[in-house]
Amino acid sequence: MSFNYEDIVRRFNEHIFKKIPHYLEDLPEEYFKSIEYTLKAGGKRIRPLIIFFSGKMFSLSDEILFDLGMLLEILHTASLIHDDLPAIDNDDFRRGVPTCHKVFGEALAILAGDGLIFLSFEILSKLSIDLQAKERLVREFSELGGLRGMVRGEVKDVLMTGRSFLLEEIIKMYEDKTGALFGLAFEAAAICSREYDKAQKLKQIGKNFGIAFQIFDDIKDIVGDFEKIGKTPGKDIKQNKPTIVKVLGLSEAEKLANDYYSKALQTLSEFHNSHDLVEFLNSIKSLLIER
Amino acid sequence: MSFNYEDIVRRFNEHIFKKIPHYLEDLPEEYFKSIEYTLKAGGKRIRPLIIFFSGKMFSLSDEILFDLGMLLEILHTASLIHDDLPAIDNDDFRRGVPTCHKVFGEALAILAGDGLIFLSFEILSKLSIDLQAKERLVREFSELGGLRGMVRGEVKDVLMTGRSFLLEEIIKMYEDKTGALFGLAFEAAAICSREYDKAQKLKQIGKNFGIAFQIFDDIKDIVGDFEKIGKTPGKDIKQNKPTIVKVLGLSEAEKLANDYYSKALQTLSEFHNSHDLVEFLNSIKSLLIER
Repeated sequence: MSFNYEDIVRRFNEHIFKKIPHYLEDLPEEYFKSIEYTLKAGGKRIRPLIIFFSGKMFSLSDEILFDLGMLLEILHTASLIHDDLPAIDNDDFRRGVPTCHKVFGEALAILAGDGLIFLSFEILSKLSIDLQAKERLVREFSELGGLRGMVRGEVKDVLMTGRSFLLEEIIKMYEDKTGALFGLAFEAAAICSREYDKAQKLKQIGKNFGIAFQIFDDIKDIVGDFEKIGKTPGKDIKQNKPTIVKVLGLSEAEKLANDYYSKALQTLSEFHNSHDLVEFLNSIKSLLIER
Repeated sequence: MSFNYEDIVRRFNEHIFKKIPHYLEDLPEEYFKSIEYTLKAGGKRIRPLIIFFSGKMFSLSDEILFDLGMLLEILHTASLIHDDLPAIDNDDFRRGVPTCHKVFGEALAILAGDGLIFLSFEILSKLSIDLQAKERLVREFSELGGLRGMVRGEVKDVLMTGRSFLLEEIIKMYEDKTGALFGLAFEAAAICSREYDKAQKLKQIGKNFGIAFQIFDDIKDIVGDFEKIGKTPGKDIKQNKPTIVKVLGLSEAEKLANDYYSKALQTLSEFHNSHDLVEFLNSIKSLLIER
């Protein structure tokens, strides 16, 4: 069976923009807009698509898969808003449009990020799934989103900026900063099906995929142009960011990313019914390295 | 039975400083310190004490009550760190010491707040309680901490600053900004005991208590001195903040606060076994209005 990916993204976007307004009722207009603006700015929706296709391994309904995708996308968006703030990465553009704080000011941007973190847990708490699976999802989302994943990765990124570091340290940082949310994307459907052993393995595959993803992103920052990447290129070097490209150089970095990518897909292909997800990940590779 | 409140605070602090390091393992030293610093700066631990005494209405163990107190205190601390940021309230002092961003910089302060929000859900997910009660707690914490409570209150505070407003609007804002977490403090033990109807009523009492608490806090900002309140006084007027004192004047505002306080305690005293909590709330009133 072959899928039309654009069609799934369209259905996913319909799903979130039908459901989100209910969660954003009774909010001041300007704040509502700051959240809606950033969620609509969109991006490629890669994480929700991964959840969608990993769901095909566990026979879950599209409804629950889109809900999981929505809450992961919300968490991802929260982290982008805070990362882009002047005190952290100081980015003026994201996904081709001005960043949240450029449009709505820093105060609302900080609070938009905070509100979205809480919102992801609110949606999680209301999913129609087994209670034990839900407990596990809350644990995984809080660990991998927070101090054992994404937030820890941001912290390392901030603290390593302008310092020297080992390749190994950057890989650990990438695994946290980018790998953790991909870990969640790969394991969420398995958890909903209470397949906890498989979830553990899928999480690790997701982390490796995330490391590759981040290296490709770094390469784009150097050789990409604004039209394609949607943000100002060349910022990593200018800000003296810790990147793998800085340590290994472009071609070795690309080789390492390809290794992580292949390793992730190889391990994944050993799972029963993983064909659709493998095919999807293969098909987007050109998108990830496109400049 | 009469309690020694200092003794309970001491035991609570022991509890959190024994348990927290486990959750903060494997974090960069400086970030660990930013979190520890702010949690240790302390404050009066009023919310954990409310949970402790409300637990006496439902025969819960001290262990679980201290865990609930810990996660609420963590959420409260997260909101203080973000509120104090230059883009929001721009406060240099809190609880008598320099604020988190003054000591560790804005980037780490933003990420300390984020990390603490995730941490509170991580601790929640690991509580040893009934799964249905846990699902309900995650829902309540995410709603009242986020877009249907605390974060919404902060947003209103920011957007109302420098504008004119009705008394009713400020009361709604106080109910969100301060009342929501007190709502959680009052209802958390009831939820753990699956007494959901009682939880609903206790939540509303907590919100009213929180409105009184916030008005007393506003009055302190005007007539208090640094030694007593631990932060720079007079900031609300200087920043043109929306406060009830601004609308009603000092003595009418104090009268309104007393009304909310009495109403909360009156309704609470109708609950079976609420004596210890009522006595505690009566005893701290002098502390809340102390300047």
